[in-house]
Amino acid sequence: MAGSHLLSHSPSLPRSFDHSFNQNPFSQKLLLPFRIKSTVKPLTLRAVLSQNAAKTAVEDSKKLHFQHCFTKSEDGYLYCEGLRVHDIMESVERRPFYLYSKPQITRNVEAYKDALEGLNSIIGYAIKANNNLKILEHLRHLGCGAVLVSGNELRLALRAGFDPTRCIFNGNGKILEDLVLAAQEGVFVNIDSEFDLENIVEAARRAGKRVNVLLRINPDVDPQVHPYVATGNKNSKFGIRNEKLQWFLDAVKEHPNELKLVGAHCHLGSTITKVRCRSVNFFFLLILFSSTLGYAFLHTCFLSSSCYWAFLGQFVVLHYCMLIMILNLKIYMLKLLLLSFFSSSQVDIFRDAATIMINYIDEIRAQGFEVDYLNIGGGLGIDYYHSGAILPTPRDLIDTVRELVLSRGLNLIIEPGRSLIANTCCLVNRVTGVKTNGSKNFIVIDGSMAELIRPSLYDAYQHIELVSPAPSNAETVTFDVVGPVCESADFLGKGRELPTPAKGTGLVVHDAGAYCMSMASTYNLKMRPPEYWVEDDGSVSKIRHGETFEDHIRYFDGL
Amino acid sequence: MAGSHLLSHSPSLPRSFDHSFNQNPFSQKLLLPFRIKSTVKPLTLRAVLSQNAAKTAVEDSKKLHFQHCFTKSEDGYLYCEGLRVHDIMESVERRPFYLYSKPQITRNVEAYKDALEGLNSIIGYAIKANNNLKILEHLRHLGCGAVLVSGNELRLALRAGFDPTRCIFNGNGKILEDLVLAAQEGVFVNIDSEFDLENIVEAARRAGKRVNVLLRINPDVDPQVHPYVATGNKNSKFGIRNEKLQWFLDAVKEHPNELKLVGAHCHLGSTITKVRCRSVNFFFLLILFSSTLGYAFLHTCFLSSSCYWAFLGQFVVLHYCMLIMILNLKIYMLKLLLLSFFSSSQVDIFRDAATIMINYIDEIRAQGFEVDYLNIGGGLGIDYYHSGAILPTPRDLIDTVRELVLSRGLNLIIEPGRSLIANTCCLVNRVTGVKTNGSKNFIVIDGSMAELIRPSLYDAYQHIELVSPAPSNAETVTFDVVGPVCESADFLGKGRELPTPAKGTGLVVHDAGAYCMSMASTYNLKMRPPEYWVEDDGSVSKIRHGETFEDHIRYFDGL
Repeated sequence: MAGSHLLSHSPSLPRSFDHSFNQNPFSQKLLLPFRIKSTVKPLTLRAVLSQNAAKTAVEDSKKLHFQHCFTKSEDGYLYCEGLRVHDIMESVERRPFYLYSKPQITRNVEAYKDALEGLNSIIGYAIKANNNLKILEHLRHLGCGAVLVSGNELRLALRAGFDPTRCIFNGNGKILEDLVLAAQEGVFVNIDSEFDLENIVEAARRAGKRVNVLLRINPDVDPQVHPYVATGNKNSKFGIRNEKLQWFLDAVKEHPNELKLVGAHCHLGSTITKVRCRSVNFFFLLILFSSTLGYAFLHTCFLSSSCYWAFLGQFVVLHYCMLIMILNLKIYMLKLLLLSFFSSSQVDIFRDAATIMINYIDEIRAQGFEVDYLNIGGGLGIDYYHSGAILPTPRDLIDTVRELVLSRGLNLIIEPGRSLIANTCCLVNRVTGVKTNGSKNFIVIDGSMAELIRPSLYDAYQHIELVSPAPSNAETVTFDVVGPVCESADFLGKGRELPTPAKGTGLVVHDAGAYCMSMASTYNLKMRPPEYWVEDDGSVSKIRHGETFEDHIRYFDGL
Repeated sequence: MAGSHLLSHSPSLPRSFDHSFNQNPFSQKLLLPFRIKSTVKPLTLRAVLSQNAAKTAVEDSKKLHFQHCFTKSEDGYLYCEGLRVHDIMESVERRPFYLYSKPQITRNVEAYKDALEGLNSIIGYAIKANNNLKILEHLRHLGCGAVLVSGNELRLALRAGFDPTRCIFNGNGKILEDLVLAAQEGVFVNIDSEFDLENIVEAARRAGKRVNVLLRINPDVDPQVHPYVATGNKNSKFGIRNEKLQWFLDAVKEHPNELKLVGAHCHLGSTITKVRCRSVNFFFLLILFSSTLGYAFLHTCFLSSSCYWAFLGQFVVLHYCMLIMILNLKIYMLKLLLLSFFSSSQVDIFRDAATIMINYIDEIRAQGFEVDYLNIGGGLGIDYYHSGAILPTPRDLIDTVRELVLSRGLNLIIEPGRSLIANTCCLVNRVTGVKTNGSKNFIVIDGSMAELIRPSLYDAYQHIELVSPAPSNAETVTFDVVGPVCESADFLGKGRELPTPAKGTGLVVHDAGAYCMSMASTYNLKMRPPEYWVEDDGSVSKIRHGETFEDHIRYFDGL
């Protein structure tokens, strides 16, 4: 927690900014019931609203949502917790870097803790989202447990001081060596398959310890997200076949010295937002509705033997089909969209899954197992689009399952990763130059798919913004924001309306706290970037060294 | 080059295997005019064919193609240059690893060198494909130059002993600091844009040296490959706007002390195979043809006023459209497929590009520039499908441009990466277990998208094979081959027909030499794997240390 403070405060800041950081970090929970427009200075609002006023506002509102710690101020600069990102760039190494807000991490955890009040629970932070040791230490300090997917993640959690009995070991391919370590440390282990159960039994024997296990069940509720992050349907590589539940229960009974069944687990993925689906949905429903109308019209005409009209009608229908084809509508999308239209609430998917899981738990208890834990897995999506969409909050999520959990006297385990850490961070880059080719304009930056691969890998949108005001004569045009990596897959954003930036201008990719640095590579020998955070007192500390060329060379030492 | 020899030879090998490795590695160029069936023991053939016989065969044949160094033998085991991969697995660290054939690297380079005979040329190995220092040293020893896309790649090339005057610095976003280093070392630099030219001028001033530059032109020839690896069309982020050529020539003239224009450069991507496109093409042409027939039929019926037939005809056409929709045919694919059908030769794309480039060079020379280098960029694709497709060889490639290059007295620079290194390597994994969910069967292995991301990132096919014979009762079914990483994107192959493997069986992902290790991440804290190669003498050496947990922790030292 020591850290080398690089920037105690920016000389260009108004006094009110600094002042606010002398308060308790928890007082900075800005869970406002209204949205701060991006042109409003955030600290003006902070100064006006006392902690109590904010709290009351929060309690009054059911729709509290996460406040973004990176805010564009009236002066045209981007601020992170009151510090100009531009000034931070000048004070650290000259290369792309990840910049976090420590207070925002705190606020995000507190939102979950508030939502879980009155329940026995474990917030199991999913380390795979971000494996920075300093961040893990902070999350442990705030009371989180940890969700692990490899032996190394378990080692890291132990290094960060996590209580292993508040850790859960997940995964479809846990290897025996890692399971032995988990058994020794007393970690909860989720049974994912027949062979996984065999390995856990073997690990328990080797460790000489009984393992607390949960069964990973597939509730087969479609999370209506990108198929890559949908992990709870029955054709997923994760979890057991539900029709084989009895086989697993019998197998656990056969190994009373090795296994203690303590709960059931499911996981739907971590991008539950559903907001976008619905808006797109109306458009396609409109198409479907009007093509149905076209058909009806045609049939009427046909029945009245007006052949010309029949022909015309069919022609119209045909063109609707071609329109859909051109829009490259995928069949599964249509299915999802229709489903989303008819579902009544944004977090119903959790209630549906929880109901299914509770039924399984009842069934398991009926066979004499003392099952106390319900693990509903991964959490909420975030507003990657910065569209102002009202997304489900931790409270929305927990409230959907609260009564079910209380009714069975269960401990609730949740496994948030993205919603705890994604919005606390930006990848900060420098503009190398601007160019135009064919009909495309490009902003070329020093960051790339090597540092942040989500746009390339998932075609994910992450919001992009300049950190300083554009020159008054800067033309605003549509850019692809690309890195220097030598392939066309290297982009951070496509079709973004931005003022033409000068060379050297800072450019951030927002919401880069989760699944960004943890997936970074050294492609094109772009070594992995350093990480910094803004502390509670408004100073900036390095929380991870950047990788260097010498780090690469070390892998060939002595060969 | 010393390396710790881990396995001098396998005791299970027939004598003939070992013998062959005492020969000069160059004698093992197996550029046979016929294809070795995968069930035939490779070394039986090697024993029969002398070096000279092979050479004659090569010279007789226009269609020489790369011989695969990994071959399934009659005994059901996979061999790498005569060593059982199974035995290698037992002799090295128990974790996924990359296994290369050093003789295959030699053979691949020799194929290019043979093809380039009679031309002044530089084989510029594209380091981004694979940045293993030991491999680079070997390629330098074989006479290659290097193509660089970052300052660190330049540092690595220097470390590997490359002559910087045979190195080319590419990239759309070269930063000033790296350009200064390139200028100091006398590396060729490709000008990619207006701002890039400015930076090169500035770098030349700072280094106090004149820089040899080439202009990166977009020939706008569509490489008919995945859009992500198509880098030569006019809307790409790479290269200059051709209509601004004069601006660039004038700019070079204005900086006689900083810039010396020595050539022109283009790059089409590195997966030129075109073979798959054509086979798919016929299918879609069939659909198009028959829907046209349907239309004709309809119109005939309509003209003869038979309304019922008109209705039926439209109905048929409608269903064709829906079929296309269901097949999720993308519009751009259709365009590409049609284009590919009408092009006459597999490597015509290179000739087309070279012709355009030669025209530019004539134009540039006409203005008094002494332009000596034509850089046609990236090279050939490889047979990732192991389908036995006849792919263009280095000779096919070079022969398309030979006369053009000779006619203008140019030096030819080529930039192969994939075709030099991809087929020399497998990612070797262990089966953790086999499971079934819903309608899907999964082989879960210890390797993952963290070690090898191409299938997840590009939906790329890489051939998958077990390294040892399956038990006689093993059922062959269709599997998705997945890793332990906690997301659905983590797969190495989908829908693969394989015998059900026992736990612990070795499983290789072929053609993993290029864009695999160089893109590896530590996602899920799966540390980057070690690398080994089979030496010319048949021993196995480690050529890269595996990354460890302690390597991760080091990034937080002292923070």
